[in-house]
Amino acid sequence: MPPVKPTDLLGTIYAQWIEEISKYPDMSVGLLRIIFDDWQRATAEPAEVTYTHTSLGGVPGILVSPVGSDPRQMQIVMHGGGFALGSSASHRKLAGHIAKACGTMSFVADFRLAPKHKYPTQIEDGLSIYRALLEDGYLPDDITLVGDSAGGNLAISMTLRARDLGLPLPHQVLTMSPWLDMENSGTTLVTNNDTDFLIAPEGLQANIDRYIDGAADPTDPGVNPLYANFSGFPRLYICTGDIESLFDDSARLHELALGAGVDVTFSVGEGMQHVYPFLAGRHPRADEEIARMATWYLAGRLSL
Amino acid sequence: MPPVKPTDLLGTIYAQWIEEISKYPDMSVGLLRIIFDDWQRATAEPAEVTYTHTSLGGVPGILVSPVGSDPRQMQIVMHGGGFALGSSASHRKLAGHIAKACGTMSFVADFRLAPKHKYPTQIEDGLSIYRALLEDGYLPDDITLVGDSAGGNLAISMTLRARDLGLPLPHQVLTMSPWLDMENSGTTLVTNNDTDFLIAPEGLQANIDRYIDGAADPTDPGVNPLYANFSGFPRLYICTGDIESLFDDSARLHELALGAGVDVTFSVGEGMQHVYPFLAGRHPRADEEIARMATWYLAGRLSL
Repeated sequence: MPPVKPTDLLGTIYAQWIEEISKYPDMSVGLLRIIFDDWQRATAEPAEVTYTHTSLGGVPGILVSPVGSDPRQMQIVMHGGGFALGSSASHRKLAGHIAKACGTMSFVADFRLAPKHKYPTQIEDGLSIYRALLEDGYLPDDITLVGDSAGGNLAISMTLRARDLGLPLPHQVLTMSPWLDMENSGTTLVTNNDTDFLIAPEGLQANIDRYIDGAADPTDPGVNPLYANFSGFPRLYICTGDIESLFDDSARLHELALGAGVDVTFSVGEGMQHVYPFLAGRHPRADEEIARMATWYLAGRLSL
Repeated sequence: MPPVKPTDLLGTIYAQWIEEISKYPDMSVGLLRIIFDDWQRATAEPAEVTYTHTSLGGVPGILVSPVGSDPRQMQIVMHGGGFALGSSASHRKLAGHIAKACGTMSFVADFRLAPKHKYPTQIEDGLSIYRALLEDGYLPDDITLVGDSAGGNLAISMTLRARDLGLPLPHQVLTMSPWLDMENSGTTLVTNNDTDFLIAPEGLQANIDRYIDGAADPTDPGVNPLYANFSGFPRLYICTGDIESLFDDSARLHELALGAGVDVTFSVGEGMQHVYPFLAGRHPRADEEIARMATWYLAGRLSL
């Protein structure tokens, strides 16, 4: 078979990253972070959205304010990048598209990164933001946790920890291509290897080591939600591309949530890459996906 | 003498880039572009500014709209990056701070880049934007050309070419650390080499070659404004750091403009790096500099 080629801008960006990263096996985490900030290139600027750098609960980040959004409805965005890479800069526009469609504010968190900061720092930083919102008078019902890739793991793990701590739970949790399997064992890692232009098991393992080596076991439900009990979990949205290596993580999460009686929605983008909503404003399937998220979000509001 | 260390975020970012670039002498222009988009990291998000991707005169870019700004006053921003690197993404926030302070709109142009596109493509793209604005009914008096580093060269070269073509001239031209000397001959390349964390003669020469090799002579006034006649040139603002390797370019431009009777303002930031207004929202000297630019801009408006 001839090699598969990228068919959209996100695949093109991923293929370019991997080509560069493969040339320099000794590449520093600092340069990897610069490369992953290039994620922003996939996304068009959402119109009528303003931004400020601020901090919540001691965690810096970007407050995203779509013009006309309800200032009391807040999304906390935990960005992807394997717990070690990614930033508010890579995810600002993606967060803007989602918040604008939902009519909410959004805070894209610059939580502390691995490997300097290991599990559970990232989850604790996320919960510091959540607690700060509650202390500031935000209602749990008005708060949504949002996360993509490793950030999807964090959004879920934050929610499970909040439940175990007896905190009021956020009303909804929205995940995009969540990365959950710290055992690096999904079958689509193999079967979708040729069509996923970013993810490869070696890269995942490097990030697993950065996040939990010496800090937790890969089957610890605190780091691997596939081992967690989802009883009492809030309304959950999962979107994923069917050709991505981490498709299995989403499919297994969907099964797990269904089995626990969670109100879960599973949206699969045919032929789409890892975290394809990054193509917002640039690809009709990404725009359609964000419209679906908004429909789901607003249906959840009506159920209050 | 012990090696000089960066004292601000911009110096730290530059030092990190050069450390990474030095490791990999075969680095592709594609990866260099990703690294230079990291320029954005130096700048805080300006509050109350919105953005849209659009195109003007066939040139793509980001339209920057500070809330409450006069929609008929427009700045065209020609970004730096040696004619080959940099983008609307690296310069969006910087443009936002300047436009907001001046009360104008701003268009950050993604003109075509070297080495695929050599001189005079970049100048022609800039003039396509300028012409599109004039055709759209913008008054030349309401248009400012803005450029930093290589973009400062482009903003000046666009103005000189517009004059030579008999086009109406933009009312004002604002440059930050303009890079003009295509002979790579300034004395501060040597005397400020230890304090400038980004610029080195070898890197400059690589970009000179990308821009003009086979296309123009380094002393051609079309690529090297230090050889140009500035008679009839509009009001001109120049800011530069006194410890940067390209200080001489600004100082020589200042002399040249004075000699031609141009209304020129020269602002020198003590101890500041190349294009230090990138530190807007993060360093008092950058904020002070942007306030000075606004004072200069508004004084120019009053002279209409």
